[in-house]
Amino acid sequence: MASAATIPDFDSLIAARDFGALRALTKNWRASDLAQVLQPLSPTKAAIVFRLLPRQLAAKVFSYLRPEGQAELLKAFGQGQVAVILNAMSPDDRTSLLEELPAQATQRLLNLLSARERAVASQLLGYDEDSVGRLMTPDFVRIRPGWTVSYALNHIRRYGKDSETLGMVYVIDGKGKLIDDLRIQQILLASPRARVLDLMDSRFVSLKATDHRAAAVDAFKTSDLVALPVTDSEGVLIGIVTVDDILHVAEQEATEDIQKIGGSEALDQPYMEIGLPKMVRKRATWLVILFLSEMLTATAMGRFEAEIARAVVLSIFVPLVISSGGNSGSQASTLIIRAMALGEVRLRDWWRVMRREILSGVSLGVILGVIGFIRISTWALVFHSYGEHWPLLALTVGTALVGIVMWGSLAGSMLPFFLRRIGMDPATSSAPFVATLVDVSGLIIYFTVAGLILRGTLL
Amino acid sequence: MASAATIPDFDSLIAARDFGALRALTKNWRASDLAQVLQPLSPTKAAIVFRLLPRQLAAKVFSYLRPEGQAELLKAFGQGQVAVILNAMSPDDRTSLLEELPAQATQRLLNLLSARERAVASQLLGYDEDSVGRLMTPDFVRIRPGWTVSYALNHIRRYGKDSETLGMVYVIDGKGKLIDDLRIQQILLASPRARVLDLMDSRFVSLKATDHRAAAVDAFKTSDLVALPVTDSEGVLIGIVTVDDILHVAEQEATEDIQKIGGSEALDQPYMEIGLPKMVRKRATWLVILFLSEMLTATAMGRFEAEIARAVVLSIFVPLVISSGGNSGSQASTLIIRAMALGEVRLRDWWRVMRREILSGVSLGVILGVIGFIRISTWALVFHSYGEHWPLLALTVGTALVGIVMWGSLAGSMLPFFLRRIGMDPATSSAPFVATLVDVSGLIIYFTVAGLILRGTLL
Repeated sequence: MASAATIPDFDSLIAARDFGALRALTKNWRASDLAQVLQPLSPTKAAIVFRLLPRQLAAKVFSYLRPEGQAELLKAFGQGQVAVILNAMSPDDRTSLLEELPAQATQRLLNLLSARERAVASQLLGYDEDSVGRLMTPDFVRIRPGWTVSYALNHIRRYGKDSETLGMVYVIDGKGKLIDDLRIQQILLASPRARVLDLMDSRFVSLKATDHRAAAVDAFKTSDLVALPVTDSEGVLIGIVTVDDILHVAEQEATEDIQKIGGSEALDQPYMEIGLPKMVRKRATWLVILFLSEMLTATAMGRFEAEIARAVVLSIFVPLVISSGGNSGSQASTLIIRAMALGEVRLRDWWRVMRREILSGVSLGVILGVIGFIRISTWALVFHSYGEHWPLLALTVGTALVGIVMWGSLAGSMLPFFLRRIGMDPATSSAPFVATLVDVSGLIIYFTVAGLILRGTLL
Repeated sequence: MASAATIPDFDSLIAARDFGALRALTKNWRASDLAQVLQPLSPTKAAIVFRLLPRQLAAKVFSYLRPEGQAELLKAFGQGQVAVILNAMSPDDRTSLLEELPAQATQRLLNLLSARERAVASQLLGYDEDSVGRLMTPDFVRIRPGWTVSYALNHIRRYGKDSETLGMVYVIDGKGKLIDDLRIQQILLASPRARVLDLMDSRFVSLKATDHRAAAVDAFKTSDLVALPVTDSEGVLIGIVTVDDILHVAEQEATEDIQKIGGSEALDQPYMEIGLPKMVRKRATWLVILFLSEMLTATAMGRFEAEIARAVVLSIFVPLVISSGGNSGSQASTLIIRAMALGEVRLRDWWRVMRREILSGVSLGVILGVIGFIRISTWALVFHSYGEHWPLLALTVGTALVGIVMWGSLAGSMLPFFLRRIGMDPATSSAPFVATLVDVSGLIIYFTVAGLILRGTLL
């Protein structure tokens, strides 16, 4: 387990300039633990510790820091130190640093790379932001079908040092095209004299560098491999993606969906780290859109002003009735958004979902309608609220609830389909967005039902 | 790539009882692809195909099916076939099948296992449902520190066949305690005469079988390993967890959070597969709770009935004003729930979050308040709506919005902290739940502000 040195230890050793003790302290640490201890240190102090670390370890620890921490450290580093760390970083970690920085800073850093590493970095940065290419690392082991197992093992021993993983090796043909993938156990367990060809089954799953990263998550879920090969459009093997990066991608995609469902833009940064003005801007956009849409409720209520003036008691149930529609709509849209993200529900399933939601909506509506009816009847009998026409009022609220909850479930479930159909992200149909939509129609349903039931008595 | 045989091919071959052609057709398939093609077949037909597959492949294909599909197939299999497949399945996949089935069925299946496999299965089923123990597989390679690298490699060749992954091997002491983990490359790249001891750094991350599975997700995120060792409370190595299982866990946890945020219980089954009555029950629980809470709005509105009767125009803006509080509350709670799930925000951060949310809330409230003020003024000037006192009405709505949005953000962000503090899941503070809470207080804020500003004019 990790040693138990703490931040104060580092702080005092740095203050005392006791580099020998510092070096000894950092000697037996895992890169991820060291990153956690260095994170809270000031960039100047952390830079001192980094200078004492061996090059490879420094690059690894640096990779574990958050992008904001990395950017600050780069400012505190001397130019030589930046070049050393940047060149020693693994290409996929470097890409994710470079894509976080402003374009100017990225260019400056690219110039510090060796010609070889610069070519790699520029190529990776050339792919779309959400593409598999950005997650890829070009460090992996290639073998040829004609080799013997013992030759392949020697090759792996020789060139495997820089590989991101040795769990998988890849078989290519003379033109660099991927023709198979092999697990390391297949090679280890085979007779040394066997040929690579004998181990091959020519069945493999590969990704294209231009694929969306969500496709990579799906591919990993169904393949149970620790790495997947990435090819260009010609089938030439150009990199691999490892499953630990995919874990981060899957979480990021879920975070974006959750934030959108909650009715805000995706923050793209941890909550505690994003600047307040930026966060307010991201949240305000949707709140304002929702507010403008919700203004329709004022228009709708305005239409029924005469009815409200005649039967003020009707207005008392407005929040209760319309919020039930909003709640059932939020439920339905959230369930569908997630089912779509997981691939459980596809666009062509809309008709089956619609039938399910009409049935669910009616059932849920009847449940709430009955409760509403009982509530009003009880209050009327016990507290003598709501005047002499309370049975009709209870009937109005109960009936309206059935219609509104059914309509909420239907609208909430169909909106994600509609958004995907027109090419938008289904998660945009956030809970608040659906609630707002359903509020307006809920008002119309409520007052229409009231008009039908209460005409001649209250209205 | 997978061959392009399709479901009709299978269907017609099964109908023709052409087992030779069927066997040939399935020969060169990946287990995951085969599972996808067999999924839509009827259980009886799929059982026929399974009978033709080699034992190991059959078990693997079976593992890739959804739990519902597995349960149906088991019914279609003969008892002998069930035993063969069950014994050949990997222990972690078998656990996840057994835990899905009713207790009686589980017991019947356990009896079909060999003594050795039954012991393994019962042990894994003994752990809590959401624990690391349930994800664990006992198939991995153990080596000893005193061995030479070449001896260790021979051992791996001999006992590695059943291992779930050879990416990592584990070093144990004489009592079976875990003392280090090694990547396979470290062993492959070392000199054959070196000793395992020389490669060790005695630094490793391990999980306890009783840990919550969410802890495993966190551990994998910071470790970038493909497998983590699992120990009992004594530190004895009892299994490993592989990252591909963790990908599923991370997605399941995100799904549960998303469904709760949307205001329903976690479905625990794919949307298209869960029975309608079960789904309605899961959704009704929360809808009813929300409905009962929302009844407080009727009580609150009842209190202000006199004010509404005097100034019906006030009721027109009720949905607009209270929904803005609900929306800002949903935003805030969703952001905090996700930040907590990712470990970005901890319980002790509540004070910092509170300050951030008060500032955000006031900013967002002022933005909406100004828009609300402009909307009412414009309508009053252009359409002569809202009577002679419209400037005071606009002021009332604008001021109330500042207070309500601020209060919504504050309540929405603090509720997840409160829930976690009392030991509940923060995701319970769903968007609809927060909206409901804020609706009631929003009404009180709105009518109180109205009372202060409009007294002597409209009221």
